[in-house]
Amino acid sequence: MMALTEHTMRLRVRYTECDPMGVVHHSRYFVYFELARTELYKLNGGNHREMEKEGVFFVVASVDCKYIKPLHYDDLIDVTVRVTRTTRAKIQHEYQIFRDGELMAVGHTTLAMISKEGKIILIPEKFHIGF
Amino acid sequence: MMALTEHTMRLRVRYTECDPMGVVHHSRYFVYFELARTELYKLNGGNHREMEKEGVFFVVASVDCKYIKPLHYDDLIDVTVRVTRTTRAKIQHEYQIFRDGELMAVGHTTLAMISKEGKIILIPEKFHIGF
Amino acid sequence: MMALTEHTMRLRVRYTECDPMGVVHHSRYFVYFELARTELYKLNGGNHREMEKEGVFFVVASVDCKYIKPLHYDDLIDVTVRVTRTTRAKIQHEYQIFRDGELMAVGHTTLAMISKEGKIILIPEKFHIGF
Amino acid sequence: MMALTEHTMRLRVRYTECDPMGVVHHSRYFVYFELARTELYKLNGGNHREMEKEGVFFVVASVDCKYIKPLHYDDLIDVTVRVTRTTRAKIQHEYQIFRDGELMAVGHTTLAMISKEGKIILIPEKFHIGF
Repeated sequence: MMALTEHTMRLRVRYTECDPMGVVHHSRYFVYFELARTELYKLNGGNHREMEKEGVFFVVASVDCKYIKPLHYDDLIDVTVRVTRTTRAKIQHEYQIFRDGELMAVGHTTLAMISKEGKIILIPEKFHIGF
Repeated sequence: MMALTEHTMRLRVRYTECDPMGVVHHSRYFVYFELARTELYKLNGGNHREMEKEGVFFVVASVDCKYIKPLHYDDLIDVTVRVTRTTRAKIQHEYQIFRDGELMAVGHTTLAMISKEGKIILIPEKFHIGF
Repeated sequence: MMALTEHTMRLRVRYTECDPMGVVHHSRYFVYFELARTELYKLNGGNHREMEKEGVFFVVASVDCKYIKPLHYDDLIDVTVRVTRTTRAKIQHEYQIFRDGELMAVGHTTLAMISKEGKIILIPEKFHIGF
Repeated sequence: MMALTEHTMRLRVRYTECDPMGVVHHSRYFVYFELARTELYKLNGGNHREMEKEGVFFVVASVDCKYIKPLHYDDLIDVTVRVTRTTRAKIQHEYQIFRDGELMAVGHTTLAMISKEGKIILIPEKFHIGF
């Protein structure tokens, strides 16, 4: 079965995600990105708990984000995640956040895999689902 | 050695702890309480990591808080924690938050202990330090 | 039109809401409660932004929660909110969190209203919608 | 007076900043960065509240972070912030997180200034303190 490489998740901005300026704090965008990426992973049959049982973990090696327009409390947003590059060592994703079709932010993450001992390892084929 | 049963921790309110109304969100007070309680525990020689290695955990069974005056970004606050009751099954703490000597909030937590299997257990004597 | 006095909101536990013990941190339950209460408020035609424009705000005067069983990452939960008491000065809500029909936690909040100057005021009739 | 262009802030990792893998969630590093940058700003006489009264705000235009080694609960860390570039339109900072002298993460932020109406504006000279 072909794995999905793109997914869009609809979210509503929560009150506690906004700062005293009334906008979503820049750190919170990475939580939105993670929610969309995890949902893509699950749509492809991935199971976070199973992975932990096997003693391997995805870790975030690097991130970036460019903020175009601010997000406010109660905004309905669409978070798109797309696999942009997969190697034996790393998986890269790109994210876009839209509100009413307008692009509000763009970000990227690079994931690597570590063993229970915390060593970087090659990513087993079976965990390439969804990526 | 007599264990301390009271401790005051000084904290500065962080920007990301405040909501769009510009005040500390009510849920965050429990993070402040936990910081003060943990510091009391460490002052008495307690070690959170050791406890986890033994496979026992303190869990929060109940909490409450009364909010008297709001806390704002950059406020310097004193969080006082006091052991108010210790039994074989539960430990109760009371917390007060002061700003410039004025009482801003009062809260309580009740802790119980669980085994690795998630069962409620009696609290071993050795973990009564600090309580 | 009769205002709704009860509402249930379905939520999925997010990874970042869980602590190193793998369970939802006790402080986060109040965020779930708020999400359900806000949704009830909106279902009754309430509008948070409008309220802020009028210069009045609901503030949380007190909270409590009893934790029965822990919530884990990816759990699908139902958060029920119910108005339990309304006076000119205060509105009380009760919350229950269920997972697969099992009661996991019970909490309460008491809201009061303040003016832009931060004074406690009587709650105007128009803001009793949803309560 | 010469403004400081670098500052190191010591922090202790909080329990609620760690995720179920027992490490600080990647989104939280930006909160640490902000704490150090804000402290640098205050050391140079900057005042966040004053700025808000004037109706201008710093907003985060872009961020990035490279995670080298994970941070754990109770780790004592040193967060160094350094102004790396200042123009009339933008201010760039670099951040490094150290634990026991070992480099754990490196990040960057670019700040811009907006008016109360949300328009990007040139940064007044008086707000260049600390930068």
